[in-house]
Formats: sequence, C-alpha cells, structure tokens
Amino acid sequence: MKHGQLATKELAEFVRESAAIEETYSKSMSKLAKIASNGSPQGTFAPMWDVFRVSSDKLALCHLELMRKMNDLIRDFNKYGDEQVKIHRKTKEEMVGTVEAVQAVQVQNGHLQKSKEGYHAKCFELDRLRKEGAPQKELEKAELKSKKAAESFAVCIEKYNRVGGEFEQKMSESSQKFQEIEETHLRQMKQLIKGYSHSIEDTHVQVGQVHEEFKQNVENIGIDNLIQKFAEQKGTGQDKPGTARLTRRSLVFLFPVGGK
Amino acid sequence: MKHGQLATKELAEFVRESAAIEETYSKSMSKLAKIASNGSPQGTFAPMWDVFRVSSDKLALCHLELMRKMNDLIRDFNKYGDEQVKIHRKTKEEMVGTVEAVQAVQVQNGHLQKSKEGYHAKCFELDRLRKEGAPQKELEKAELKSKKAAESFAVCIEKYNRVGGEFEQKMSESSQKFQEIEETHLRQMKQLIKGYSHSIEDTHVQVGQVHEEFKQNVENIGIDNLIQKFAEQKGTGQDKPGTARLTRRSLVFLFPVGGK
Repeated sequence: MKHGQLATKELAEFVRESAAIEETYSKSMSKLAKIASNGSPQGTFAPMWDVFRVSSDKLALCHLELMRKMNDLIRDFNKYGDEQVKIHRKTKEEMVGTVEAVQAVQVQNGHLQKSKEGYHAKCFELDRLRKEGAPQKELEKAELKSKKAAESFAVCIEKYNRVGGEFEQKMSESSQKFQEIEETHLRQMKQLIKGYSHSIEDTHVQVGQVHEEFKQNVENIGIDNLIQKFAEQKGTGQDKPGTARLTRRSLVFLFPVGGK
Repeated sequence: MKHGQLATKELAEFVRESAAIEETYSKSMSKLAKIASNGSPQGTFAPMWDVFRVSSDKLALCHLELMRKMNDLIRDFNKYGDEQVKIHRKTKEEMVGTVEAVQAVQVQNGHLQKSKEGYHAKCFELDRLRKEGAPQKELEKAELKSKKAAESFAVCIEKYNRVGGEFEQKMSESSQKFQEIEETHLRQMKQLIKGYSHSIEDTHVQVGQVHEEFKQNVENIGIDNLIQKFAEQKGTGQDKPGTARLTRRSLVFLFPVGGK
C-alpha cells in the first residue's frame, strides 16, 4: 500500500514535469511569434511574416492549454492521493485481527521449535543411556521425560495447527482485501493516465490543424499576390497580375539614385 | 533587393530559433524519461514506468530529429543567401545604364523647370511693359527676349521628352528584371518554407505514432497482469489470474509485523 501512495506521488510528479515542459514550449512559441512580428515590414516577403506569427501564436495557445489540462490532472492526482491515505488508514484498522494472527503463529512457531528440540534432546538422552546400559531406574526416568516431552510436542503441534488455521483464514481474507485495494488503485491510476493521454492527443490534433492551416496560408499567398501588394504599398497601381504598370514617379522611388 | 536579403536572413533566424526550441524540448523529454526510469521499482505500478520511459525517450528522439532537419534547412538558407548576394551584385552592374538614364532625366527635369520659369518671367515682363504703355523699342526688345525664351523652353521640352523616353525604356526593362528577381526570390523562399513545413509535419506524424503506441501499451498492461507480476516478484505463484494462491511464507512477507 505504501508503494501505491508512492506511485501516485511519482506519477503526479511526472505530470507536473510534463506541464512545466509544455509551459516552456508555449513561452518559446510566443517568443517565436514575436520574432515573426518583428520581421521587416518592407520588401515583397513582408506579408508572409503574418502567417508565421499567427501560426506560432496558435501553437503557443495549444501548448498553454495542454499545460492547464495537466495542472487540472495534478489536482485529480492530489485528490486521489488523499483518498488513498484514508482508505489505507481504514484498511490498517481492519487488519488488526490479521496482525494478531500473524503474531500468534509466530509465537506458536517459536514454541513448536523449542518443544521439538526438547523432545529430540530427551529421545537422544534415552538412547544414549540405553546404549551405555544404564540402570533400569535411570532408564525409566528418562523414558518418562521423553514421553512427557512427546506429549508436550503433540500439544504444541495441535496448537500450532489451530493458530495456523486461523492465520490462513485471516490471511486469505486480508490478501483478498489487499488484492481488491491494488486493483482499485491500478484502475484509478490507469484512469488518470487515460486523462493524461487524452489531453496530449487533443493537443496533438489541434497542433496538426495549426500546421495544416499554416501550409494552406503559405500556399494561398501567391507570388503574384506578394508582388502586387508590394507595388501597391509603393504607390504603384497594377493592371493585371504579373506585369507591373509603373509610373515615372514610382519608378524613381523604386530606384533611388542620389539627388531629389 | 536589400529587403530580399534581409528577409532571407530573418527567416533563417526564425528557423534557427525553432531549432533551438526543438532542442530544448528534446532535452526536456529526455529528462522526463529519466524521471520515469527513476520511478519506484516496487509495488504493482512499477512495470508501467517503462511505458512512460520508452514513450518519453522516443519523443525526445523525434524532436531531436526535427532540430537536425531544421539545422540542415539553415544551411540551405545560408547557401541561398550567398547566391542572392551574387545575383544582386550582377544585377547592379547590369543596371548602370538605368542609373544614368535616371540621372539624365533628373538633370533634364531641372533644366526644364528653369527654362519654364525663365519663359514665364519674360512673358510677364512683356505683359507689364504693354500695360504700362512702354516705348515701342522697349516692347520689341522684350518680345524678342520672350520669343527666345519660348524657343529655349521648346528645346528643353523636346530634350526632356527624349531623355524621358529613354528613361521609360530603361526603367521598363529594369523593373521587368526586378520583378523577375523578386519572383525568383519569393519562389525560393516558399520552397524553403515548404521544407520547414514538411519537416514539422513528418515529426508531427511520428509524435502521433508515439502517442498511439503509448496508449496501446498502457491498455495492453492489464491490471490482473500487474498484480500477477507483483506476486511473482514477491516469490508467490499464481494459478489463475485474479486470485492469488498465497503460501504462508509469502503472506508473512507481504505482511511484515515486527520480529523475525
């Protein structure tokens, strides 16, 4: 469960970093739009700068919106993180019985080991006395001890099995509960990732549209058109595209060589 | 033509800034991949980090490639800029005749104005003498002066028209030449913009594929799958998806409560 909380925090951190990257990119695009708007207003190319400026400005907006969506998502992450803490606290309380069962089986396991060792020691002692041909009285005493140790060992086994049964029961319930918690957690995480993924996808589509628009705008501004605009700007009329009708005055303007 | 050279430089600068933005974005994506690869390797969510890492790494590559393509484009810009300078130098040499014609028409225009003013002054003087009833001798002298001024003015007009005709001829040729230069320039600029646009489009398609892959990878890693992987990692076998078969040993591992 601790790992679950950590994963939520780490993924939120990942999204936070993504949002920061998008913010930086958006700012860079605004800067690029500024460069375009500072493009020289003179010469035949001048009207093209507007196409670059508009496109860069739109891209800046797309990435700013993505940043905003990611920030909204981080709020969802934080909300889920808080819920997660509550759920985990509640689960911990519900698990008290299981904790006790674990402790009981651990204690009982200790007893069982000791009892087994005691029994084995008694058996070994009895065996040794028999091999040495000890007096009957001593053998009887050792036999009694061994018998008692066997009984005590049997009681321990029985108790261990009982405690172990409870442990298995509690553990099965708890692990079921843990599994449910993990499933819910992963479902929630995948839902949040889906939100992240959708936001990125939406922006990707928008960015594609801006690129398409840019391409169209560049194509739409014909070379004839640019030359005509330039001629008009210089005070020169134009009768038909492709051939400039230049007056003496405007020609001098186009071709300034000293003097007045 | 100066504006043309400036436009080439400015657009190259714009693309250079774009390339720098893509480089920064690429580096940020690599950083994001690093964050993903530093995601906790424990817990059920752990395998998901790899999906984030792979995706971020691929995005970093996409934007790095775009940066490279833009840098190639800047080389094309520089190459074109050099050609442009050569063409303009050559054109300037070819325009010497036009420069002379412009200067001639300007000089002749000055003469024409002076001559016109002189003629008007003489006419005014003659008119004044007539009104004042000046002596016949004085009137004849003034009439002669006015006639000479009229002849001189007529010569000036004729000369101006001839020089002006040459001027118009030269100017028509030059403006045709300028128009051709501008058309070639704009065609070249549009070609370079097309290269820029294509590179961005290619990257956009690649980025879309990376997003699609990411989405698929997230979907493909099922929740059951993540839980099973986690259980396996913890040394727990699993018979069928969705239900963990937990051994006593592994349960204690999953549920550590003090002591050994």
